[in-house]
Amino acid sequence: MKIEAKFYHAGCPVCQDAEKNIADALDPKIFEVKYIHLGEEKNALDAAEKAGVKSVPALVIGGKVFHINFGADLSALK
Amino acid sequence: MKIEAKFYHAGCPVCQDAEKNIADALDPKIFEVKYIHLGEEKNALDAAEKAGVKSVPALVIGGKVFHINFGADLSALK
Repeated sequence: MKIEAKFYHAGCPVCQDAEKNIADALDPKIFEVKYIHLGEEKNALDAAEKAGVKSVPALVIGGKVFHINFGADLSALK
Repeated sequence: MKIEAKFYHAGCPVCQDAEKNIADALDPKIFEVKYIHLGEEKNALDAAEKAGVKSVPALVIGGKVFHINFGADLSALK
């Protein structure tokens, strides 16, 4: 079974860079990457916040949050 | 030919988390990951700084810097 990696983003340039170079780059043999656009999927904001996401882009893998550079604060997407 | 990804770290817990979950997780078919411990390889500090690394852990892929969470400022490793 693959490990789920959730990539939270907002479509911003910083997010796109992280998406192309990190999220898309994860080993597909090991990871199943889910892409969540928090600007469009507002109902996912709560789950992101509970997972510990403070800003986008961020990857959540195995319950750990990895904030990658800084695109936008989560509060700006509410 | 594989794409080079440089993972700069300092052996700190935040660095180790990023190493295990992000750097080690990159698709080995596409990337050749080099691990650079800036606490031990002081002569690599200049190159890291020139690449735009401000803190560790950070991944440099294709000339772009991805700071992943925050472990230590580069200046603290000098």
